[in-house]
Amino acid sequence: MAQPSPLLAESLQAIARDVDSLFDALLPPPEAGLLAQAMRHAAIGGGKRLRPLLLTATAAMFGVDRTHALRAGVGIEAVHAYSLVHDDLPCMDDDDLRHGKPTVHKAFGEAMAVLVGDGLQAFAFEVLADPATSGDPFIRAELVGVLARAAGAGGMVGGQALDIAAEGAALDLGAISRLQQLKTGALLGAAVEMGAVMGKIAPEGRTQLRAYARDIGLAFQIADDLLDTQGDQAKAGKALRKDAEAGKATFVGLMGAERAREQAQMLVDQAIAHLGNHGQEADVLRALARYIVDRDH
Amino acid sequence: MAQPSPLLAESLQAIARDVDSLFDALLPPPEAGLLAQAMRHAAIGGGKRLRPLLLTATAAMFGVDRTHALRAGVGIEAVHAYSLVHDDLPCMDDDDLRHGKPTVHKAFGEAMAVLVGDGLQAFAFEVLADPATSGDPFIRAELVGVLARAAGAGGMVGGQALDIAAEGAALDLGAISRLQQLKTGALLGAAVEMGAVMGKIAPEGRTQLRAYARDIGLAFQIADDLLDTQGDQAKAGKALRKDAEAGKATFVGLMGAERAREQAQMLVDQAIAHLGNHGQEADVLRALARYIVDRDH
Repeated sequence: MAQPSPLLAESLQAIARDVDSLFDALLPPPEAGLLAQAMRHAAIGGGKRLRPLLLTATAAMFGVDRTHALRAGVGIEAVHAYSLVHDDLPCMDDDDLRHGKPTVHKAFGEAMAVLVGDGLQAFAFEVLADPATSGDPFIRAELVGVLARAAGAGGMVGGQALDIAAEGAALDLGAISRLQQLKTGALLGAAVEMGAVMGKIAPEGRTQLRAYARDIGLAFQIADDLLDTQGDQAKAGKALRKDAEAGKATFVGLMGAERAREQAQMLVDQAIAHLGNHGQEADVLRALARYIVDRDH
Repeated sequence: MAQPSPLLAESLQAIARDVDSLFDALLPPPEAGLLAQAMRHAAIGGGKRLRPLLLTATAAMFGVDRTHALRAGVGIEAVHAYSLVHDDLPCMDDDDLRHGKPTVHKAFGEAMAVLVGDGLQAFAFEVLADPATSGDPFIRAELVGVLARAAGAGGMVGGQALDIAAEGAALDLGAISRLQQLKTGALLGAAVEMGAVMGKIAPEGRTQLRAYARDIGLAFQIADDLLDTQGDQAKAGKALRKDAEAGKATFVGLMGAERAREQAQMLVDQAIAHLGNHGQEADVLRALARYIVDRDH
């Protein structure tokens, strides 16, 4: 497995640091009580922050101020973080470990974990609607609309519902791709789209960026399947091999590891090709696409 | 127990009908799958729709088009509906019955109930951010901000977290009032505030309306406590007497039924007094304040 390029390594470091410090500043302080502590446990200090990185890197291509883009990045990351908290619940995937820490329901109880997820989702939209995120109310409302559509029944939550309904069922490749496009792809696509919204790029100008996001979304999921079957649990910071144990249909299960790896690489090449009309301002997005299949956790 | 006044009865009928038909039009169709069916089960055909009524009645005072106000009303009602779905979960209040129907987790399973709540919250913000709700992006962003703050850790979810933490603890009247002000009052206050936002009333002009909302919020909760101890389970459409069984501190438990009833009446009088500088355009809000303590379910 390869290391990220120097450019990407620097971007990954910067986004992890900046997202953590902004969550720290914007979330209710620990003194506010147990809910605040549990929300901070879920949001601060974990994850690669791919969605904020996609958002800020796209926004940077169009000259958007980083302070503004980072706030939107924290908004989308709050949605991602809440989805992990609810996903880990006993009635869902029942996981004990996330980012190398006890999951929220393990540390704070199940009822609190439900509320942490609910509170983080509200927090996401509160941040986006705040004038500090953009002085232009049209952009604020558009950011909310893009994220809400991607997070809801027509996106992430819809994908999770399909995932639950499909447990034990024999899905084919097309069905898995559709499921994953909703469950993971919708939010990754929203990250790029929100960056473009902040850059005042009209919907028709976002086609290539959306295609890029779609391809890396699917590549990301195939790489996740590969890591789940072949990865190192200590590096992953979460339980692995769970999909196979749960009898879930996966890309690797259906295609075999070798073809899955080829398919992911093909998607990455295709994603990079979609950025063809952009110059070096798109280099972080290119490096990120490559990293998605090369990462070891 | 009194019936609602003719003016209010008509308003309650109209809002129940209009909120149901707008949910029906805006939620994903039942053919979309189990998640869509479960979201519709949670949102359509139940509840008094007090929040949309407060919102549309306030908006009407300032000449806002009812079509627009109704969309915002459906947004806030989606948040209320999601909170009930999560509140009813086994790890929270563990209720089997809501609005006379099986709760979502009883009918669709626990995992689906978590996702229904998550999806309804995203839906709420999607509706508010849509240009069909207001042609003015500033109003759309402001609606999102007001609702997100009221729904999150500093409002409804914060109140629910206090409620969980307080289980079995001996709360005094001040602590219960603060808890309920977050848990129920914040969203009722947001309903009025969102109506004022749509009417382009600046924050400083909303003081009296907020005071009205705060008073009816507390009166509403005391009335709920009275109904929980003395109400008719068939009319309520949900399990009663649960607070006492769970050893929860309530207004009625602390003050006795007689003083609680007096206190609620006093709050209603005070709420109506806050509307003093408005003419008959505020009559629905006045009637609603009276109804809150007089209702039998």
